[in-house]
Amino acid sequence: MPTPDAMSTPKATLAHAEGEFLRRDAADPLRAVPDRFMPGAPGVLYFDANSVGAMPRTVEARMRKVIDDWTALRCQGWTASDWLDSPQRIGARIAPIVGAAADEVIACDTTSVNLFKVLAMALRLRPDRHKVITEPGTFPTDLYIAQGMRRYFPRLEIVYIDRPDAIADAIDQHTAALYLSHTDYRSSYRHDIVALTHAAQSQGALAVWDVSHSAGAVPVGLDSAGVDLAVGCGYKYLCGGPGAPAYLFVAKRLQAEVEPALTGWMGHADLYEFARDYRPATGMARHLVGSPVVTAHAMLEAALEVWDGIDLDAAFAKHARLGDLLIELALTRLARFAVTVASPRETARRGGFVALRHERAAPIVAALRANGVICSYRLPDIIRFGLSPLYHRFADVGACVARLEQVIGAKPWDDPRYAKANAV
Amino acid sequence: MPTPDAMSTPKATLAHAEGEFLRRDAADPLRAVPDRFMPGAPGVLYFDANSVGAMPRTVEARMRKVIDDWTALRCQGWTASDWLDSPQRIGARIAPIVGAAADEVIACDTTSVNLFKVLAMALRLRPDRHKVITEPGTFPTDLYIAQGMRRYFPRLEIVYIDRPDAIADAIDQHTAALYLSHTDYRSSYRHDIVALTHAAQSQGALAVWDVSHSAGAVPVGLDSAGVDLAVGCGYKYLCGGPGAPAYLFVAKRLQAEVEPALTGWMGHADLYEFARDYRPATGMARHLVGSPVVTAHAMLEAALEVWDGIDLDAAFAKHARLGDLLIELALTRLARFAVTVASPRETARRGGFVALRHERAAPIVAALRANGVICSYRLPDIIRFGLSPLYHRFADVGACVARLEQVIGAKPWDDPRYAKANAV
Repeated sequence: MPTPDAMSTPKATLAHAEGEFLRRDAADPLRAVPDRFMPGAPGVLYFDANSVGAMPRTVEARMRKVIDDWTALRCQGWTASDWLDSPQRIGARIAPIVGAAADEVIACDTTSVNLFKVLAMALRLRPDRHKVITEPGTFPTDLYIAQGMRRYFPRLEIVYIDRPDAIADAIDQHTAALYLSHTDYRSSYRHDIVALTHAAQSQGALAVWDVSHSAGAVPVGLDSAGVDLAVGCGYKYLCGGPGAPAYLFVAKRLQAEVEPALTGWMGHADLYEFARDYRPATGMARHLVGSPVVTAHAMLEAALEVWDGIDLDAAFAKHARLGDLLIELALTRLARFAVTVASPRETARRGGFVALRHERAAPIVAALRANGVICSYRLPDIIRFGLSPLYHRFADVGACVARLEQVIGAKPWDDPRYAKANAV
Repeated sequence: MPTPDAMSTPKATLAHAEGEFLRRDAADPLRAVPDRFMPGAPGVLYFDANSVGAMPRTVEARMRKVIDDWTALRCQGWTASDWLDSPQRIGARIAPIVGAAADEVIACDTTSVNLFKVLAMALRLRPDRHKVITEPGTFPTDLYIAQGMRRYFPRLEIVYIDRPDAIADAIDQHTAALYLSHTDYRSSYRHDIVALTHAAQSQGALAVWDVSHSAGAVPVGLDSAGVDLAVGCGYKYLCGGPGAPAYLFVAKRLQAEVEPALTGWMGHADLYEFARDYRPATGMARHLVGSPVVTAHAMLEAALEVWDGIDLDAAFAKHARLGDLLIELALTRLARFAVTVASPRETARRGGFVALRHERAAPIVAALRANGVICSYRLPDIIRFGLSPLYHRFADVGACVARLEQVIGAKPWDDPRYAKANAV
């Protein structure tokens, strides 16, 4: 097994191709964007973009400002700050990335709490229907929120469909909502959001999407797909930092009709009236519940500046090419080690990461980490490489596969250091 | 009207009493604790403890660490951090402050979302009862959450009782829960949590308390009162910073019985099993929903270190004396300006702040702020002074009343600069 030292200046098995990777980087219109991020440790390749995105340089100064603003409170009070509007400002920044209008997205709470909101809203919008269609392998929190929802909608029936091509046919006139993760968290399979949204709506059902594993990496197009309700996560490809606030989308055409699922003070029409009775604010503000988590909002807002001036089409095109390259190299260089590709080859069917498969995936991921490649493992045999169009270079992908070759070639499952699987 | 410059070296009308205030500070066993906080601007008196607590010095370094940990992710991945256990660690630190055991409190979400959880839990624990008893003047978000709850419990009847001494009699065998704020957010009236909890339970109802305006300033005693469920806020007297995470309390005896209201991944019995079906974790962890907001958790956790080694009885006793002094000075020095005391004189009936009353409260608060006293206004005529046992000194209270005398004496309501009320 190569030592970390040896790996930090790898004798790349892909050395012959290095020139080609560098040429691709030189031709990349986004080649300067990785410099907008704090560098990682030297020689370490970070491919956990699907878990926590890298830190944009803007964040540090904004954290400093939060500290200063908090201290300054002692001479000003709350009102001197712009904290209370941050959910709207952040929503407006996220909106174009997911193909929505600025007033259709608001930042608040966690993805899970927002899943509760959108699913409860959907069920209340279709009170005479009792089915929700989902997949058994959708991300656990999406499933758990739906299962818990039976406490409040006792007639709710959750229908689990385990083949993407069987989903449309499962939607019927008893279906209140199609409730799916846009991208599968294990395989990175990305649903056809246009076709499935249409299939749901043609039966009178609502289309509710979790775009956490897509947003910021691949096109989502909530408005062009005609999606009704959606949620997403701020800390993956949006780079908002660990535990960043999540966001919630309600299509403009539904906003006046849809009542908030959780009715808190921040969603009231007039905060400072301190009225006894709840009266929802107009637009997206009604979906706010408690006070914004100021620090986390400030970090996410600063992080989103990294998207300033980015041509989104170019970013999504680059992301697809990064994934294509990783898959191509895996097929040509890693097949001899019994590595297969779990993600779709077709870029339009692939989400934010590329998943490979190997029966000893867990010790391989542990050994990769010990040798400077940060990626993640998922039961039972999945190795995930999260790709960011903003901070990854083609040369990173080449170096990643070169290390994979070395690491797998050394059969790390025989090494007791890597025997313990690491699931996160 | 004195100018800010003149006020920063006030010719104190209470100068004759200054020696007495300083003597009290010198005898205060907690006299060194204010130095654990970042200083405010020179000459500015901060009495908005009930809104956002001052910043403990420990916070800044911890923010630095969050930034470093996030950057370090690029060579380690999530698992290297201690982020996922922060809800429990923070809960254990808050527990003694509210009179609970370490495993009865967990930090998560916002106060409002936690209010939804505890009220939904209470209603499910008493399925054959349909009433919730509360006050019409309870903090708005508490009311709004209860009103929205009718979407999920259609039979729910909210009974509003507007006199504290009439609450106990309103509880009957149809009452599922008594649902109150421990301290009133306008008057600082503090309920008798022991008597009312007993009154609820003697009718078979659950006692559900919001202790946001009490915790960290006055004794709460959740366990000694036998409270069933409670929530509180992290950013007032606990000094966790703007929008800090909230917390949730479930009495030990109920923990196995009570199902979580919102069933998210973080509350599952085995996160890394990625099971299809939800299975609640044991203890308080089942009430977690989404990922912890790492930055905000880190700040609150660091801030809570300010309580290390603090004798809580001494802190609560000091808080009572600070409030007694403010009331005594208001009665003797401000009555001639038609200022009255809205808060109870009896310390056991008073929460975290002292409220004064004046018909021109709004311009007075605006003028106070312009003259270096930060306090807050509440409709229609309330001026609130939040008192922290940790960072306020007796001399601060004296200086505060001296400035009040000067400011009110100058009739600031005639000054167009202060005409616009400032409600926050």
